[in-house]
Amino acid sequence: MVEMRTEYDLLGTKDIPADAYWGVHTARAMENFQVTGVPIGHYSHLIRGLMFVKEAAACANHELGLLDAERLTAIVQACQEIRGGALREQFVVDVIQGGAGTSTNMNANEVVANRALELLGSRKGNYARLNANDHVNLSQSTNDAYPTALNIALIEAADELESAMEELQQSFERKAQAFRDFLKIGRTQLQDAVPMTLGQEFHTFAVMLGEDRARLIESSALLHEINLGATAIGTGLNAPTNYAERACAHLVRLTGRPLVTASDLIEATQDPGAFVHLSGVLKRIAIKLSKTCNDLRLLSSGPRAGLGEISLPPMQAGSSIMPGKVNPVIPEMVNQVAFVVIGNDMTITMAAEGGQLQLNAFEPVIARSLLDSLLSLAAACRTLADRCVDGITAHEQVMAHRVKESIGLATALNPFIGYQAATQIAKEALATNRNIVEVAIEGGFLTSAELADILTPERLLNQPAIITHKSDLAQ
Amino acid sequence: MVEMRTEYDLLGTKDIPADAYWGVHTARAMENFQVTGVPIGHYSHLIRGLMFVKEAAACANHELGLLDAERLTAIVQACQEIRGGALREQFVVDVIQGGAGTSTNMNANEVVANRALELLGSRKGNYARLNANDHVNLSQSTNDAYPTALNIALIEAADELESAMEELQQSFERKAQAFRDFLKIGRTQLQDAVPMTLGQEFHTFAVMLGEDRARLIESSALLHEINLGATAIGTGLNAPTNYAERACAHLVRLTGRPLVTASDLIEATQDPGAFVHLSGVLKRIAIKLSKTCNDLRLLSSGPRAGLGEISLPPMQAGSSIMPGKVNPVIPEMVNQVAFVVIGNDMTITMAAEGGQLQLNAFEPVIARSLLDSLLSLAAACRTLADRCVDGITAHEQVMAHRVKESIGLATALNPFIGYQAATQIAKEALATNRNIVEVAIEGGFLTSAELADILTPERLLNQPAIITHKSDLAQ
Amino acid sequence: MVEMRTEYDLLGTKDIPADAYWGVHTARAMENFQVTGVPIGHYSHLIRGLMFVKEAAACANHELGLLDAERLTAIVQACQEIRGGALREQFVVDVIQGGAGTSTNMNANEVVANRALELLGSRKGNYARLNANDHVNLSQSTNDAYPTALNIALIEAADELESAMEELQQSFERKAQAFRDFLKIGRTQLQDAVPMTLGQEFHTFAVMLGEDRARLIESSALLHEINLGATAIGTGLNAPTNYAERACAHLVRLTGRPLVTASDLIEATQDPGAFVHLSGVLKRIAIKLSKTCNDLRLLSSGPRAGLGEISLPPMQAGSSIMPGKVNPVIPEMVNQVAFVVIGNDMTITMAAEGGQLQLNAFEPVIARSLLDSLLSLAAACRTLADRCVDGITAHEQVMAHRVKESIGLATALNPFIGYQAATQIAKEALATNRNIVEVAIEGGFLTSAELADILTPERLLNQPAIITHKSDLAQ
Amino acid sequence: MVEMRTEYDLLGTKDIPADAYWGVHTARAMENFQVTGVPIGHYSHLIRGLMFVKEAAACANHELGLLDAERLTAIVQACQEIRGGALREQFVVDVIQGGAGTSTNMNANEVVANRALELLGSRKGNYARLNANDHVNLSQSTNDAYPTALNIALIEAADELESAMEELQQSFERKAQAFRDFLKIGRTQLQDAVPMTLGQEFHTFAVMLGEDRARLIESSALLHEINLGATAIGTGLNAPTNYAERACAHLVRLTGRPLVTASDLIEATQDPGAFVHLSGVLKRIAIKLSKTCNDLRLLSSGPRAGLGEISLPPMQAGSSIMPGKVNPVIPEMVNQVAFVVIGNDMTITMAAEGGQLQLNAFEPVIARSLLDSLLSLAAACRTLADRCVDGITAHEQVMAHRVKESIGLATALNPFIGYQAATQIAKEALATNRNIVEVAIEGGFLTSAELADILTPERLLNQPAIITHKSDLAQ
Repeated sequence: MVEMRTEYDLLGTKDIPADAYWGVHTARAMENFQVTGVPIGHYSHLIRGLMFVKEAAACANHELGLLDAERLTAIVQACQEIRGGALREQFVVDVIQGGAGTSTNMNANEVVANRALELLGSRKGNYARLNANDHVNLSQSTNDAYPTALNIALIEAADELESAMEELQQSFERKAQAFRDFLKIGRTQLQDAVPMTLGQEFHTFAVMLGEDRARLIESSALLHEINLGATAIGTGLNAPTNYAERACAHLVRLTGRPLVTASDLIEATQDPGAFVHLSGVLKRIAIKLSKTCNDLRLLSSGPRAGLGEISLPPMQAGSSIMPGKVNPVIPEMVNQVAFVVIGNDMTITMAAEGGQLQLNAFEPVIARSLLDSLLSLAAACRTLADRCVDGITAHEQVMAHRVKESIGLATALNPFIGYQAATQIAKEALATNRNIVEVAIEGGFLTSAELADILTPERLLNQPAIITHKSDLAQ
Repeated sequence: MVEMRTEYDLLGTKDIPADAYWGVHTARAMENFQVTGVPIGHYSHLIRGLMFVKEAAACANHELGLLDAERLTAIVQACQEIRGGALREQFVVDVIQGGAGTSTNMNANEVVANRALELLGSRKGNYARLNANDHVNLSQSTNDAYPTALNIALIEAADELESAMEELQQSFERKAQAFRDFLKIGRTQLQDAVPMTLGQEFHTFAVMLGEDRARLIESSALLHEINLGATAIGTGLNAPTNYAERACAHLVRLTGRPLVTASDLIEATQDPGAFVHLSGVLKRIAIKLSKTCNDLRLLSSGPRAGLGEISLPPMQAGSSIMPGKVNPVIPEMVNQVAFVVIGNDMTITMAAEGGQLQLNAFEPVIARSLLDSLLSLAAACRTLADRCVDGITAHEQVMAHRVKESIGLATALNPFIGYQAATQIAKEALATNRNIVEVAIEGGFLTSAELADILTPERLLNQPAIITHKSDLAQ
Repeated sequence: MVEMRTEYDLLGTKDIPADAYWGVHTARAMENFQVTGVPIGHYSHLIRGLMFVKEAAACANHELGLLDAERLTAIVQACQEIRGGALREQFVVDVIQGGAGTSTNMNANEVVANRALELLGSRKGNYARLNANDHVNLSQSTNDAYPTALNIALIEAADELESAMEELQQSFERKAQAFRDFLKIGRTQLQDAVPMTLGQEFHTFAVMLGEDRARLIESSALLHEINLGATAIGTGLNAPTNYAERACAHLVRLTGRPLVTASDLIEATQDPGAFVHLSGVLKRIAIKLSKTCNDLRLLSSGPRAGLGEISLPPMQAGSSIMPGKVNPVIPEMVNQVAFVVIGNDMTITMAAEGGQLQLNAFEPVIARSLLDSLLSLAAACRTLADRCVDGITAHEQVMAHRVKESIGLATALNPFIGYQAATQIAKEALATNRNIVEVAIEGGFLTSAELADILTPERLLNQPAIITHKSDLAQ
Repeated sequence: MVEMRTEYDLLGTKDIPADAYWGVHTARAMENFQVTGVPIGHYSHLIRGLMFVKEAAACANHELGLLDAERLTAIVQACQEIRGGALREQFVVDVIQGGAGTSTNMNANEVVANRALELLGSRKGNYARLNANDHVNLSQSTNDAYPTALNIALIEAADELESAMEELQQSFERKAQAFRDFLKIGRTQLQDAVPMTLGQEFHTFAVMLGEDRARLIESSALLHEINLGATAIGTGLNAPTNYAERACAHLVRLTGRPLVTASDLIEATQDPGAFVHLSGVLKRIAIKLSKTCNDLRLLSSGPRAGLGEISLPPMQAGSSIMPGKVNPVIPEMVNQVAFVVIGNDMTITMAAEGGQLQLNAFEPVIARSLLDSLLSLAAACRTLADRCVDGITAHEQVMAHRVKESIGLATALNPFIGYQAATQIAKEALATNRNIVEVAIEGGFLTSAELADILTPERLLNQPAIITHKSDLAQ
């Protein structure tokens, strides 16, 4: 039989397992919210964020004379232990919950309180000695403590995503360098267009990631504006004078992040704009990653009946029925992560639009969706770099042959013989299944020597130097 | 100088151009809503729906002794003229409007009233003789007249889409028949898989359309439940006894559709469920059409550096800079229509979720989005059939060659030599750039005769008969 | 040190923990896919579906002479044990994975194989005796086994949702009965409209759920069409004659569901239409549930400065800073579930549109999103019924008073004094802060007796009988 | 009978109406794309953008010796005339079109060419004299000219939106000033919370708009990076040396915008990132505007049975059946615009994700969706300011009374009597239907004088000064 202790709240008394660090508020919430089976403890960034806030608030309260040194010490140590990974299993409330985060906040307040009581040599539940509301949550409301914690969680998670994107960018860049001299035919609308190098194609993937990283950093900067000190609706009712400034200063010290207090706390308390913005940027990243993976899958299609310009490294057997089949499983996984992120953005859109008057009650689902998106994208980027891009090989001869046979070479003749004559050569080449050079020479449009000059890679790529010999294409 | 007449409403008097069929309510709405520049007259299905409702209501009101024969005759004739296409330019309110459709309903009431006044030999604006509210809108509220008109509009537009889909389905089916003997390699995850015919591939496009048509018909059936007679909130306040039944009977007679009055008018008045459902089905259709067009673009990629299994008919020059380039412009257009339909579904989702208590105030944007989706999809299907699918040609030799070279043929050897030996053959063939048959014979796994038996198209396709000779693949 | 066994696949050998029921394919997938941290074992419906398929396939293979009785018995027993809940922790692959479900299918094949080996008295990994591919996956491809298992999983989960919706519907219906005589003012566009009863309002919530349940049942019916027997791309290559029929018959026997084999297996293998359709219906349900919860929150707003017509039962303390505050946490949770479902629909839309040629590689994210939506909605409905609707109380006097003071009563005067005179009364009442009855009498429009006759609840509600006394309103 | 001229292209000859400024490419496109009925001429910003590009390109080509002075002069004048509004009806291609914008670009090239021919004294269609491709489109591809024109169009439209938002912000700010002393009860989760002023509530609306404006300006800045000079795929094939720089310089001169050439033209040509980003910001704006309008509708609900704290100015009669009813039609319109913008963002997401390799073929639907969103939002903001916010009035007494009666006042007692005692007062007040002050005095918790000190507006609002007398609340 489980030993119990009795706690009480607005609704009355309730028995709590004696060894639980959480209390009556958490217990009610566990009963009320049985939705996903995923507890908030799954989101370690959020728990860290909450611990930063609780510690900073305690320090500020102490400085303002509202919290004695003994309780301060106990609360601070509890917060630091939990931040370091302790008691994660005590954060048990379902991540999807009503109440604008109150249950998450109270779960945190109760666990900190009971761990602090232990540190004070007291028993759990002895709230007269140290209280979840009166001491741990002192000068706070869920409506400022929770979003501030979330901002910190998102800043840290965004950092991790940014690092993962950088890793992937560098992986693409290394391949761009390795493939820099491989001439190939570029494609627009899936139709053969004009020449480029495979290095340019991979460099583009890298550049796109670089641009998206810049947007992510900008978006993360918006999260540095916090509303701690706003209390219930932003008027700061019951928060002592100078509390907001001091709590923010402690948060800056603890997190090492340049956080600032919002200039309008009423607005900051109800406005999920920074969350929506971050989600928009994550969607942008997802869109581009998905497009990149679509391209990788397309370029590696085959092995015999596809484009077959590159090969992805085989990571697992592709089929239980088709011997030797290998599938692009890593890019496919990334595509799916992207689709989840795009779906999460829609969830966040609905949740943000649904806010009313002085508060958005749906921040828990915003928190869950943003953290899921950030962490899945980070995992996807790292996996894509390590288990796919790093191992990509190119089929230089296949690509070079296609450039030579390409109708698109006719474009380069425009400045010398005009668009109309070039069109005539292109049509003839297509109809007779020959290449542009043959038809151009045979039709007396240009000589072999002239074509050798025109169709140099340098000229085709509009670039000063490339290694491939010019004679390749004009023969 | 424009001659004016003076009308008045709750807000006071207002000058109206003397020759306008619309009146003061429409004039206020024109001033209030200057959003898209697209007037409701652009949506002829909606205007037709409104005219059906106004005529049916007038007939029911007459039978119940509320409307005299003279006014009835004038209203009925006005409705029929407008339904036939007259006065469409008088429907001037912006399609995006506040007020749950009141402005659309009043625009209709006023145009019918003033045309009826003309037919009665009276001047426009002489509302004492025949009034937009008291006679044209008699026994109605916007909240029942408007959604009923919208249901009828959607039923008719859905019919048109269904016909267009059938046309496209038949176009694909004709190609399936034409391509029935063309063996090709099927692909999963863009990697070569096992053989099939191009006919099967095109037949699939047709079957998918058939399934989607069935869903569209089911969804349209849900729209046949109407709420005419509900008046303001579904309690039927001010609608005379038996009015709902009689109005519905007249609507059935006029439209030729098996409409029925909803069993719970309060629910029916606030529930946009049938609209959401239709939008979901349209999204489904869009998803499949987009996927089909992606496939067409992929299979026709090239002409030299792509899959090149089929050619789409050239519809316009593809590039101002690349001579001879032809792009898959028709499928690309269809993709974009699909993306718009998917976006419209999101708009409808937001609008439907935003309804409050006894009414959804956002039906105008639902109406606009559904009608746009239905009509764009219908145009897209017809265009795709006429200007693309009908003209597709296939490259039989290219496809046949790829089957012969395909690693996927190894799958067919499993039952004879086991998965493991088949894998060995597949790996060897890939590594040495040879085909399965050569490697299988050389390795002593099977004889040429055995392979000729195993690799018949009949066996590969699991089908009784196909024309291609079995020796093709085993040589 | 963990004891290991060695397994091998296309990529070479790999050490596997000796006590693991999963094998090399699962091990590769675990390394490749570290995205969400949620393993497929979390989705018990999917595991059940896979076990049904493996057992049915084994039975069909035995009947067709491809699988001996001993292996059959072992496989069947393994499947039944797992279906009953055993070995759930062995299903370890991340739910977001590349490869169109191959890793999930192989995880299942390997666990069944190793448990069957145990039952045969053999050691794990002794695949010569009983093999994951050759015996458990016999006559199957991931591309038919996986979607068939998913269909079964979704059918069962949809059943659970349907039950939960019925429970909620009955809860609303009970309240509709309890509140049937409580007159209140209906609202359109958040503005006071005309009278209705609170019972009608709650009955509407019930009716909407009933309609949505009907749509869910229809959508589930579409899932009964399966593609088992299609193998890789729907041509049935390597599946023996009559296999599809026999496997389906066994599935029907085992599941008790009227499953049928799709008439076109190529189409069925690539078409995620039924998944998209189900998702559309789930979105519809989510939209309505969210709207219903918005209404509950609105009607219970207050306690002093809101509409305050009903009270939701208090489930937890609402605020750590505001004494006595109670929030509508249960409806807020349901709103958030709805937003997640709507987001999941977007994910599914992207995934479905992204399918290419003969397969949709993104079925894993479709599976995850649909199962999450179904189960979250079921939990939300049950919680809403048990922890909110069942405990709702109504404030009859507040509502009755507002009806009496309502300007909307003027609507009922139209048939007696005309719209214009009624408007005059309404304007006067508003301007002078009096009620309609006072102004109507004072202005000589109607007598007190006439008003008492006109403003009976029966007349206002257009209904034969209601208990409230008619004199209430006309005084 | 219409007089015709004959033109030809890759597909052969075609008769064109002799007086048409457009030519054969436009004619083909008109036949191919009959989707929405909305021609590109509807989007004047896009036409202006195209004309800027054509003029800048002509100037650069002239400087580089590729275009003679006579043709330059004619082209420049044609561009300037069209930019000024001329010939808008000649831009006839459907806005939804395949071909990545080629048809739009060719429509522009042809109209400019034929107008320039007229200016040269030549007849339309005399392309030997001045050619749409060889002269107007010289050194360009659709793939650089079109997105550059679109960037300019979006920059200008974003400016208009930003002005409209500023206008709305100022309107809210004026009301914030007017309502600065009106004390009211703030609400979280639709439940009464703690006091604030109506001025603070309206100021918040203004601040949110200010933040969103800042994001819009940042997003517009990203559009200043253009890819003119990239030609087909970004390699700049056929564009002369220094062309990109010179064309950009002319664009800067003509538009007055600090445009810059992208550092990586291959990336810039295929990356729709800036479009996706802008759409994300527009969605953010839409979400907030919708939330603001939801709040306005909620606060003005009534007139008798709602919150009734403010009144929106009546803009039109609200109902054809309910006398005197006035609806919040302007906010409702804005809500619907927001839903359209959110839907457009989804369309753009799909289109952006669908890009392949060196180009995104779906830019036309991106262009249409962004321009629609920008212009609808601008119209919505201006209308909301002019026709709603400017005319809002407040009901000071209603709000003041509710503060006095509010349970939320108990929060302010926490620091003086503790959370637990405050809860006791709150429960008692609710149960006995009295106010906090009465219960607090009666229970001996605080004296009337103490309460008068505690419950001053200054203290409740945590602000130095406010006009309302402190005695109001404590009596």
